[in-house]
Amino acid sequence: MLADVELAKSYRLLNHGPTVLVSSAADGKRNVMAAAWAMPLDFNPPKVLVVIDKSAYSRELIEASGEFILNVPCRAQAAQVVQVGSESGRDEDKFAASGLEALPAQKVGAPRVGGCIGYLECKVVPEPHNQQQYDLFIGEVVAAQADDAVFGGGHWHFDDDPAKRSLHYIAGGAFFATGEAFSVA
Amino acid sequence: MLADVELAKSYRLLNHGPTVLVSSAADGKRNVMAAAWAMPLDFNPPKVLVVIDKSAYSRELIEASGEFILNVPCRAQAAQVVQVGSESGRDEDKFAASGLEALPAQKVGAPRVGGCIGYLECKVVPEPHNQQQYDLFIGEVVAAQADDAVFGGGHWHFDDDPAKRSLHYIAGGAFFATGEAFSVA
Repeated sequence: MLADVELAKSYRLLNHGPTVLVSSAADGKRNVMAAAWAMPLDFNPPKVLVVIDKSAYSRELIEASGEFILNVPCRAQAAQVVQVGSESGRDEDKFAASGLEALPAQKVGAPRVGGCIGYLECKVVPEPHNQQQYDLFIGEVVAAQADDAVFGGGHWHFDDDPAKRSLHYIAGGAFFATGEAFSVA
Repeated sequence: MLADVELAKSYRLLNHGPTVLVSSAADGKRNVMAAAWAMPLDFNPPKVLVVIDKSAYSRELIEASGEFILNVPCRAQAAQVVQVGSESGRDEDKFAASGLEALPAQKVGAPRVGGCIGYLECKVVPEPHNQQQYDLFIGEVVAAQADDAVFGGGHWHFDDDPAKRSLHYIAGGAFFATGEAFSVA
C-alpha cells in the first residue's frame, strides 16, 4: 500500500542514490524516462536535482508544465527501466510500449508510474541558466509517497522481497540492486 | 593497485549513487567530510555535482583553493565515513582523528583519502549563484583513478571482497552496501 511520506523526510527516498524514472505530462501528452543522475538538494522545504538532456522529449513536457515526478522503480521493473531509458517518447507512448501504468498523482498533473516503491512529486524551481548550460533541473517536492511494504518510519527496509529492492544503474543494461543494510555505532 | 580511469568513463565511478568523501586543502589546512549528495553532471568533459553546506569547514577550503576530490569509500571504511561526517574539521584535523590517510593527488592540491576505491580530482566550475543559493558546487573532473581490484574496463566488479563494496548512506550511521549485480537484455 502507498503511504504518505513526511516532506521533511522525503529526501530519504533518494539519499542512497537509486536510479529513478522521471514522469511528466503537458498538453495531453505524457512521458516517462530513466535517470541515474538525480539526488536530493535540500531537506526542508525539500528539493531535488535531476539532469534532463536537451534531446529528451520529457524536457519539453517538463518545461511546458513546470512539473515532474521522480518515481523510484524496483528490481521487478528493471527491464522496463532500460526500455524507457532507450526509446524516445516522441515516437510512441512509452507507457503503452513498456507496459508501465500511468496513475494519477496527488499534487501535480504528471502521472505516477505504477508499481514503483517511492514517489516524489515536484514543481520546477526555475533556474534558466542551469537548465540551459547544464541540463540541470531543480524541483521542490510538494508530495511524497512510498510503498509501506519497503519504506516506513523514514527508512527503507528491503529485507523481505528481493524484487522490491531499488536499483542503481551502471550502463549497458547492467544494474546493482540495493544491497545489505548495516549500521556502525 | 590504483589505475587511471579514462576521463570520459569517470562518471561510472559515481553513476550508481555511492556516498563519497570530499577532501580539500588550502593555505596549509586540509579536511575531509562525508557527502551522500554527489552525482555526475556531464560525460565529456566530465563534471560532477556536490552539495556542501555553508557551515562546513570544507567549504572554506574549497572556495579558497577552487579544488576538491570526490573519494569513493568502501565498506571497510564505514565507521570512518560516519566519523568524518559527524565532526568538524574546524576543531581538529579529521585525517588524524579518524585514522584516514592523506595522500598526494595527481592534479590538485587536495589530498586523496587512502584506502578508497575511486578518486575524482575536480576543479570548481565557479557558479556563485548555485553556491550561495543552493550550497551546490560543480566540479570538472581533471583526473580519475580507481582500485583495479574492484574497477576495470569501465565497470565496477565487487564480487570478490565484501569489504571493498561501495556505500550508500541512509541516516543515523545506517548504510546499504552496493548489492548484487545483474543485467537485463
